[in-house]
Amino acid sequence: MAEKFKHISESHLKGYIKNVLLTVGLPENDSDIVAGLMSDADMIGSDAHGVFRLPQYVKRLIAGGINKIPNIVIEKEKNSMAVINGDNGMGHLVMERAANIAVKKAKENGVAWVGANSSNHAGPASLYARIPLKNDMIGIYVAVGSSNHVPPWGGKDMLLSTNPIAITVPSNERPPIILDMATTVAAYGKVKEKLQRKEEMPVGWMIDKQGMPLTDPSKSNEGFLLPIGEAKGYGLALMFGILAGTLNGAAFGKAVVDFNADATSFTNTGHFIIAIDIAAFIDVSLFKNNIDEVWSQMKGSALLPGFDEIRLPGERSHKIYQDRKVNGVPIHSNLKNALDNISNELNIQKIF
Amino acid sequence: MAEKFKHISESHLKGYIKNVLLTVGLPENDSDIVAGLMSDADMIGSDAHGVFRLPQYVKRLIAGGINKIPNIVIEKEKNSMAVINGDNGMGHLVMERAANIAVKKAKENGVAWVGANSSNHAGPASLYARIPLKNDMIGIYVAVGSSNHVPPWGGKDMLLSTNPIAITVPSNERPPIILDMATTVAAYGKVKEKLQRKEEMPVGWMIDKQGMPLTDPSKSNEGFLLPIGEAKGYGLALMFGILAGTLNGAAFGKAVVDFNADATSFTNTGHFIIAIDIAAFIDVSLFKNNIDEVWSQMKGSALLPGFDEIRLPGERSHKIYQDRKVNGVPIHSNLKNALDNISNELNIQKIF
Repeated sequence: MAEKFKHISESHLKGYIKNVLLTVGLPENDSDIVAGLMSDADMIGSDAHGVFRLPQYVKRLIAGGINKIPNIVIEKEKNSMAVINGDNGMGHLVMERAANIAVKKAKENGVAWVGANSSNHAGPASLYARIPLKNDMIGIYVAVGSSNHVPPWGGKDMLLSTNPIAITVPSNERPPIILDMATTVAAYGKVKEKLQRKEEMPVGWMIDKQGMPLTDPSKSNEGFLLPIGEAKGYGLALMFGILAGTLNGAAFGKAVVDFNADATSFTNTGHFIIAIDIAAFIDVSLFKNNIDEVWSQMKGSALLPGFDEIRLPGERSHKIYQDRKVNGVPIHSNLKNALDNISNELNIQKIF
Repeated sequence: MAEKFKHISESHLKGYIKNVLLTVGLPENDSDIVAGLMSDADMIGSDAHGVFRLPQYVKRLIAGGINKIPNIVIEKEKNSMAVINGDNGMGHLVMERAANIAVKKAKENGVAWVGANSSNHAGPASLYARIPLKNDMIGIYVAVGSSNHVPPWGGKDMLLSTNPIAITVPSNERPPIILDMATTVAAYGKVKEKLQRKEEMPVGWMIDKQGMPLTDPSKSNEGFLLPIGEAKGYGLALMFGILAGTLNGAAFGKAVVDFNADATSFTNTGHFIIAIDIAAFIDVSLFKNNIDEVWSQMKGSALLPGFDEIRLPGERSHKIYQDRKVNGVPIHSNLKNALDNISNELNIQKIF
């Protein structure tokens, strides 16, 4: 059997992505920011949201579906909020800007909520919620997903996306607690990953139009993703869509463009980020020690039959990050082929 | 078969609750506020969070577990946030105050986040998220539940509660969209309701310590509630507990007192509310029309086999409210017996 994965270093990965973006026409500084965030996504184990997405980004950048040189501006602003117009730029640039504005406003006012419209797919939710974290803040990020794969509960018209949420909480000696989850049982990126790897999906991820389990990822367009907790996950996806989309004047419901199938239409993607300055609420050291204590309580729970440990949200990701710092990021042979197509098209050096 | 339910009017219900609270020793104005919110809970169909809870409140008020005359104060404050110390008063008083502060701060600053510690059980989550709604704002409310019924995923130590969330969104001609959900498949109030009505629970609500389904509500203390989406619901319950508890200096994890079993210990219950002033983000009429459009899109979806309609969050509650305005609130015979015990103890008129 052929070796399916090859490992490359973070800096090598970032360098390759940056070179692609520069060649396509992004400015130097923007290429650097996006390549950094995309390689961060791979480093923290969000394999379906890092370099994996580069082929589609490149297709949209070349076809004009994403603006290479956007004029990202603040459209609305008060002490504790802003709405950013991303001018159809890369979502990474829009949300990095939004997160930094949220941090600044939270430092002054305690809490800040910054929404964005006219943005694009920005990678994994936790990337942006991690920015407040670096400032002793709690971060919350929510996005309207970049294509609809979920009907309202009981229906079969795909009007909702996986609309994910990330929440980050700093700790003292323990790793930070970082929740990053779709409101569906599986994120759609996981389905794409199964397809690329030619693996079956577990029962419970998707159903078909008769409501029966769908496990072949090549037939994913014949069915829907299932929300967590049935009607509850539908309710969360709906509300997150309204908060990240409708409230910001961004797309939601039928207006959402399938970013995976379409290289040219304006997606008007919406997201929001909240930064919460812990110091405004409670002594920061006390809070972080209390989070260490929460961590210890959870880890210390007796186990149900069939489980060998309790995990905290973000723990797996933290271990992957430490592993990849040493051993590099695994690139699947099918992903390598997709990246080689880009390199050939742009006439630049291959990733390896 | 005996008639199990009798219907009484909203004003009659509120009058009875107010009389009980006054007799126990709450001030006139506080009794009026709490009785109003509790009867509101019954009117919107939160049957497990309205008058149903009165016996336990009375027990705690008499035993000193809840402070009858609290000095509720703002402990921390910046432009867009506050932390309220509830002085161990009724949770309804604390969160009504918190919601009004959030609305005022959001009007000035765009968005406001108000947390509370030293509070108590306050009824259904949506009660407080509905206060911003009346001001053309979006409301978000989260609480640490009043007893732990959920282990971390894979464990069997009950360290988490059902930690619910409510999100309210105003519309134009349609009813507002109001999500009010526990992060567990079933809220614990639903289990208590099944017990009082001597009904079995469906499979999927609870498991026992071997991980097997538990359906007898009289054995609920031998098992746990299941989180929605397995580890995802655990992650949400954990994060909501940190945001509503730890961040406010309120109880979370092992520190949570089982309010149902204990009539005297200080619970230090935590909650928070967010008010989002829609006008800061987008034209309010446009937004409300867009929410009507979201409503129509969801309702218009083709149906999966086995479903006869799509429901929006809050739609069922809205219909119950309209029905109860006309027909009154149904009081189960077992609940009537529990309330009669209070009436006898306090030597006041029975509910009917």
